[in-house]
Amino acid sequence: MTLEQAQALDAADPLGGYRAQFMCPDGVIYLDGNSLGQLPLSTVTAGTELLNHAWGQRLIRSWNEGWIDAPQRVGAMIAPLIGADADEVISADSTSVNLYKLIVAALRLNPSRNVVVSEAGNFPTDLHIAEGAVAAVAGAELRVVERGALADALGDDTALLLLTHVHYKTAERFDMAGWTKAAHDAGALICWDLSHSAGAVAVELNAAGADMAVGCGYKYLNGGPGAPAFLYVARRWQEQMHNPLSGWMGHAAPFEFADGYEAAAGMTRWLTGTPSVLGLNALENGLKLWADIDIRQVEAKSAALWDIFHAAGTAAGLECVTPSTPSQRGSHIAFRHSHAYEIVQALIAQGVIGDFRDPDILRFGLTPLTLSHADIWRAGENLRAIVESGAYRQPEFAIRNAVT
Amino acid sequence: MTLEQAQALDAADPLGGYRAQFMCPDGVIYLDGNSLGQLPLSTVTAGTELLNHAWGQRLIRSWNEGWIDAPQRVGAMIAPLIGADADEVISADSTSVNLYKLIVAALRLNPSRNVVVSEAGNFPTDLHIAEGAVAAVAGAELRVVERGALADALGDDTALLLLTHVHYKTAERFDMAGWTKAAHDAGALICWDLSHSAGAVAVELNAAGADMAVGCGYKYLNGGPGAPAFLYVARRWQEQMHNPLSGWMGHAAPFEFADGYEAAAGMTRWLTGTPSVLGLNALENGLKLWADIDIRQVEAKSAALWDIFHAAGTAAGLECVTPSTPSQRGSHIAFRHSHAYEIVQALIAQGVIGDFRDPDILRFGLTPLTLSHADIWRAGENLRAIVESGAYRQPEFAIRNAVT
Repeated sequence: MTLEQAQALDAADPLGGYRAQFMCPDGVIYLDGNSLGQLPLSTVTAGTELLNHAWGQRLIRSWNEGWIDAPQRVGAMIAPLIGADADEVISADSTSVNLYKLIVAALRLNPSRNVVVSEAGNFPTDLHIAEGAVAAVAGAELRVVERGALADALGDDTALLLLTHVHYKTAERFDMAGWTKAAHDAGALICWDLSHSAGAVAVELNAAGADMAVGCGYKYLNGGPGAPAFLYVARRWQEQMHNPLSGWMGHAAPFEFADGYEAAAGMTRWLTGTPSVLGLNALENGLKLWADIDIRQVEAKSAALWDIFHAAGTAAGLECVTPSTPSQRGSHIAFRHSHAYEIVQALIAQGVIGDFRDPDILRFGLTPLTLSHADIWRAGENLRAIVESGAYRQPEFAIRNAVT
Repeated sequence: MTLEQAQALDAADPLGGYRAQFMCPDGVIYLDGNSLGQLPLSTVTAGTELLNHAWGQRLIRSWNEGWIDAPQRVGAMIAPLIGADADEVISADSTSVNLYKLIVAALRLNPSRNVVVSEAGNFPTDLHIAEGAVAAVAGAELRVVERGALADALGDDTALLLLTHVHYKTAERFDMAGWTKAAHDAGALICWDLSHSAGAVAVELNAAGADMAVGCGYKYLNGGPGAPAFLYVARRWQEQMHNPLSGWMGHAAPFEFADGYEAAAGMTRWLTGTPSVLGLNALENGLKLWADIDIRQVEAKSAALWDIFHAAGTAAGLECVTPSTPSQRGSHIAFRHSHAYEIVQALIAQGVIGDFRDPDILRFGLTPLTLSHADIWRAGENLRAIVESGAYRQPEFAIRNAVT
């Protein structure tokens, strides 16, 4: 592919207009939208309005003017992106906290089963939280196995299969329908972590028959750093599952101030404390951009961007660890190299921002709303030049940051 | 007291200058700063800068430029307001979620004791969360008793006494040192909820020998709607207590992405998911205002405001349920009336914003940084006129809002 060919693809790109709706720093090609999505320009307006009017002028009255049902409203906006109904999704807390709620609740739903099965190398917080969650249910335990051993790990004792749909490092994508069926065939429930899926690939929770899911607001949904997360519970489980973090916002009548807890109906019971209004406001605004987007166009453009960057990386001699079949991956691409950290730092120094993932992975997010084919072509040229020239072999590129 | 006398107090008020640093809506006397604190004007600047520069321009790089240690930095700013050391406080999640963490951790610290004691009529989420927390520890139970029976409820089986320092409804304040000693004398730990204390009254956790505490960022600390909360663990317990919500941000080395959880040292282990950066930014900015404030001046002004408003309320025939001794209360005042809801609504219609608390309480926050003595005098006149005239007896004032 030549730059001219990439530019021709941009000229015909049905998503090309979205880029102008985001802040795009000069001199930067941002391949980290799968870690922190870019700022929608309208979020600045919405954030300023929230501060100056809703908080500043309306003050406590704003709880009755849109704040109190923001978790449900934002959840309903996320629902179509993950193949759920509007009343099956709510936005709250962090992905980690929501995972804890669902794992504990799932274990308590069927006390005759006591094992949570998950994958070695799953995103760490999923495994860490699962460790904490099984400790909260008598007799429960966590069984972590390699991907190839997952099917055999499902058995009569399995309460829950906990999988991340798109792998944070390699971008490998599980077959959601197939693994949901496998869990159900074993008599277990399934919980999907959609952090690298929502807004990246088509997700069909209800069509797959999924039970539970969680996901992140600050990646492809452009909700801002540390945005509220979301959780999904299939309608058939909603009255039977209970939030272990039984806080007042999940109460059936929080403003009656009763001593005893009584769970609210529907998804509201998954709330715990006072919602983070600043975070929800930014997330809601990021989600407005998704209202008219066809996720199939997003997937198609992601595949085209992937091909361009994959060609550059492999030409440079990097080992690609992401599946080459689009339906088997998410919207990022990862390469392995023994100097992955230094190469990523050298790229950042040239304005091409990707991620290092311990110990040897270079990871690049391909976000079709904010990136052009020409961006990816140029970033690929940077990557190739840095690797082929050995320019990453400078001491400054080996200095480790707190966050890598 | 006359208006002229109130104005004379304002002229001599050492805290009078702070009001200009907050947005104060025209025509409003805001007596709800104990529910949602007012907007510091500088938070608009800080919020816009966060969006346009840190998120918009610096993007993922901002995690290494101040975001990753915001929970610790904000915690250290809260510490002096609650009599703690900087490394004993961290900001994270909601008060409810933090309470869950600490109650479960406290129960696990001493398995030979299994009872959490708390007060009937405590703020509901404290009791609701305690219900959820005891369900996560085998054999644990919650014992909720009236205030007068608390001392007798402490016994050989008590693991934890959970108290809210200043009562959300009546403003009654517990003697922190005395109740901490009572818990310790019974061999139990104590956890204080400081939601209505931090920034309202002098709090001396370490001087009292307290073990744990939580509190809220969106009331007197002016952190914004749904601001991140905080938690405190006395240094002597920090290495022995463990966060049941064991997420990656509380890991000793989160960016090594290991499968197994290993708790970070110090307060960092109480983090769970990705910090809410937008919320922390606003809270940090609200806290900057507190850097030079003497809490004793705040308490003294609060007492003066209280006297003015108390005189008006009692003159109107309302029953005050808040203690008249300043050291025995927080910084709000509550009256009982069978038409409390309607009176509050009638006041709001006149721009005097207070709270109704089910079933019959009128509650008014007296926030010395944002209110003048003249404000309180005028609000008192409004209250008196509405009650004495019966002007609250209109159908429109009986219409219930979702949030009361």
